[in-house]
Amino acid sequence: MSHLEEYLEANRDRFEEDLCELLRIPSISTDAEYAPEVRRAGEWMHSQFLALGLDSEIIETAGHPIIYAESPPIEGAPTALVYGHYDVQPPDPLDEWKSPPFEPQRRDGNLYARGATDDKGQMLTHVKSVQAWVEGEEQLPLQVKFVIEGEEECGSENLHAFLKDPKSQERLAADVVVVSDTSQFGPGQPAITYGLKGIAYYELHVIGPQQDLHSGSFGGAVTNPANALARMLGALVDDFGRIQVPGFYDDVIPLTDRERNMFATLAFSEEAFCEQIGVSALSGEAGFSTLERRWARPTCDVNGIWGGYQGAGSKTVLPSRASAKFSFRLVPDQDPQKLTAALREMLEELCPPGVTMELVDMHGAPGVVVSLESPYMEAAAKAIEHGFGRSPVFIRTGGSIPIVTDFKEALNADPLLLGWGLDDDNTHSPNEKFCLADFHRGIKASAYLWRELSRVDSSE
Amino acid sequence: MSHLEEYLEANRDRFEEDLCELLRIPSISTDAEYAPEVRRAGEWMHSQFLALGLDSEIIETAGHPIIYAESPPIEGAPTALVYGHYDVQPPDPLDEWKSPPFEPQRRDGNLYARGATDDKGQMLTHVKSVQAWVEGEEQLPLQVKFVIEGEEECGSENLHAFLKDPKSQERLAADVVVVSDTSQFGPGQPAITYGLKGIAYYELHVIGPQQDLHSGSFGGAVTNPANALARMLGALVDDFGRIQVPGFYDDVIPLTDRERNMFATLAFSEEAFCEQIGVSALSGEAGFSTLERRWARPTCDVNGIWGGYQGAGSKTVLPSRASAKFSFRLVPDQDPQKLTAALREMLEELCPPGVTMELVDMHGAPGVVVSLESPYMEAAAKAIEHGFGRSPVFIRTGGSIPIVTDFKEALNADPLLLGWGLDDDNTHSPNEKFCLADFHRGIKASAYLWRELSRVDSSE
Repeated sequence: MSHLEEYLEANRDRFEEDLCELLRIPSISTDAEYAPEVRRAGEWMHSQFLALGLDSEIIETAGHPIIYAESPPIEGAPTALVYGHYDVQPPDPLDEWKSPPFEPQRRDGNLYARGATDDKGQMLTHVKSVQAWVEGEEQLPLQVKFVIEGEEECGSENLHAFLKDPKSQERLAADVVVVSDTSQFGPGQPAITYGLKGIAYYELHVIGPQQDLHSGSFGGAVTNPANALARMLGALVDDFGRIQVPGFYDDVIPLTDRERNMFATLAFSEEAFCEQIGVSALSGEAGFSTLERRWARPTCDVNGIWGGYQGAGSKTVLPSRASAKFSFRLVPDQDPQKLTAALREMLEELCPPGVTMELVDMHGAPGVVVSLESPYMEAAAKAIEHGFGRSPVFIRTGGSIPIVTDFKEALNADPLLLGWGLDDDNTHSPNEKFCLADFHRGIKASAYLWRELSRVDSSE
Repeated sequence: MSHLEEYLEANRDRFEEDLCELLRIPSISTDAEYAPEVRRAGEWMHSQFLALGLDSEIIETAGHPIIYAESPPIEGAPTALVYGHYDVQPPDPLDEWKSPPFEPQRRDGNLYARGATDDKGQMLTHVKSVQAWVEGEEQLPLQVKFVIEGEEECGSENLHAFLKDPKSQERLAADVVVVSDTSQFGPGQPAITYGLKGIAYYELHVIGPQQDLHSGSFGGAVTNPANALARMLGALVDDFGRIQVPGFYDDVIPLTDRERNMFATLAFSEEAFCEQIGVSALSGEAGFSTLERRWARPTCDVNGIWGGYQGAGSKTVLPSRASAKFSFRLVPDQDPQKLTAALREMLEELCPPGVTMELVDMHGAPGVVVSLESPYMEAAAKAIEHGFGRSPVFIRTGGSIPIVTDFKEALNADPLLLGWGLDDDNTHSPNEKFCLADFHRGIKASAYLWRELSRVDSSE
């Protein structure tokens, strides 16, 4: 692999430049106005794959296109499928960015831009490692397939549908699904994420009078949708951080002793964590540590709330409606659909007379946990040790990658979640970044991954 | 009074023309661009008073001028002070007006224009009734003073300051303060409003992490300010519509049996009310009727709420802060300052670890109730019966007119709230109107009011 390592070293600037090129495209998938930019990012991926001599296709969907690519099959070696996404979150609030979100800027060894770590930078490490094999070694030691979508930040609806199609399942057939869209445990401490939370995301509208009313003339007699919304949301979690939807915890797989011990030995400082995010204290479900809460216990967050007058000064209005976005993070084996039914019933009971509620089920996916004993897991650990110079720890995450569950269901292939990011990368926030050293370590680990995976007996 | 009635009859067109002249001046006090027009409206008032031979002055303030006028004192008779305002709300949205807001148009017996009912039309009835006495009878039977301000729609800040000055208090000394800036109970059913609610208006900010966080990575361990805000607001009112701030009801003067009976006999249809505002049911404090809730019980309304992601689609964010505007409507003898202290303590107890709260006291004013036994009240009822051909009902309102409280405090004079408007006059909305018949009935009632008030023994 020394030849390949030389190639990687010689091409650092070129790889970074390619990443910057992709980051300059504002591929915000949640906003219809940016649809042409999302497509442009997809086309950019397509041209990358073609340049590597891969068989690649822009697969049209009802929304943003899926970019597919594959290298030739290798007899006797397993097949790895790389999943990633070329779309990004909206950048707002814009005024909190130190440099414009779509003009990548290098500062302190990091590259700052929306999508730097989530997921353009991380995803690209696997494209560049294939490039290293193809240009540096001539041939990959196993077949690598790529499915890079443009709708991860808005629910992956069309990829979801695509994966349900038996023809797609045949085409995508693989032994493992490699995903780099998570984080290391900390700077210099790589990790393999063996568990992901699921999610159930909702929008709740509480609808009252046909127009805003004077709160003096009508208040106290006409049900106020904003009051009702606050009460309904406030009832979701009790004083002990326990979610109050009936039956919510029925299917939760408890943490094992091995897991609790493993998490407890990780170098995690609550104080440093508080300082990092700027809070004086933490809170959460009683009886669980912070890492357990974040990684392996279900949670409930209001993601947005709005209604009535938000401007300066005081306006004495009884708003005609109020709304919120909120979501639950789920753990195996909670079922989002079962939850939605129980939630709807609970909210309808809480909804007072005089207002109506509309609960929109935005998207849902169950959580996933991979066996720590899988040979692919061991192969990945070796590759990471090569790339990062340190063995990875095994962690879980509170993040949800619903599509990972879909892949598992569609292809019966376990995910390998190899996160190159860091917790303070400001994913989904202003000043998103990706450490450039990790970008290159990720490429190297990925290059080794193809070798390690190729040695696993896939007939097992 | 037959001579005076003839005069009123003969001058109907002239009075309407005068009103139209005033309505043509776009005296929008909230918009600095319209300052010259606001002044023009004030000067127009001043010239009206001078033409009636009253002693009048344009009193300059830091904002728009106050127009003051007075007739000569009458030995042995009380003094009445008329309060009104010559400024208006902005007319937007303009495209919803059927005729331009500052080109008064007669349609179906109404006069349509911004300010028609609030307050140019209603206020002018008292000027025209004085004109009738002065031109038709030569002399008013009591001293009438006028304080007509140009800042009612933007907070009355300068009038508030003016009323605190002992010199002003001496100059304005009166036995009653006559205000026509409210509504009749319904078409053809005049009313005297003997109670106004007070108000305590707050802004609440709940502040968490220094920036928005990924709800997957941080949710469940980091206190979510939007969850906390919902719980805090949700705790303000219980399932029975009772406000939970400790001691909240301690100083509430209960409704008397007379009041409850009086309200119960009013022609008020809950069904029609629901239909008017477009709701299927009403709710509120248990044990009270809709009118009691609206007029005489304290209430709590969230006026605005915001935090996190409000755009389309789903953003999995744990917002760094969340805020709300909310207000209580108060009844005598609740004290806004005492309430603020109890509220702050309650919210601080509810505020979970990991977030901080900031409670901003925006403004407060106590409620006011005038005794139904006051001889001025009886005089006003008689005058209204003359003017409208029907005895008024005695009502209260959930609205707050802080300046009325200021007058009561500054002059120790009870307010007489004689509303000539109607609930569907579109106050503050497009197509504001004033029923022309009510304009003339108001002038006649006002003309009789001067006679009836003059007969009250003010030394009592």
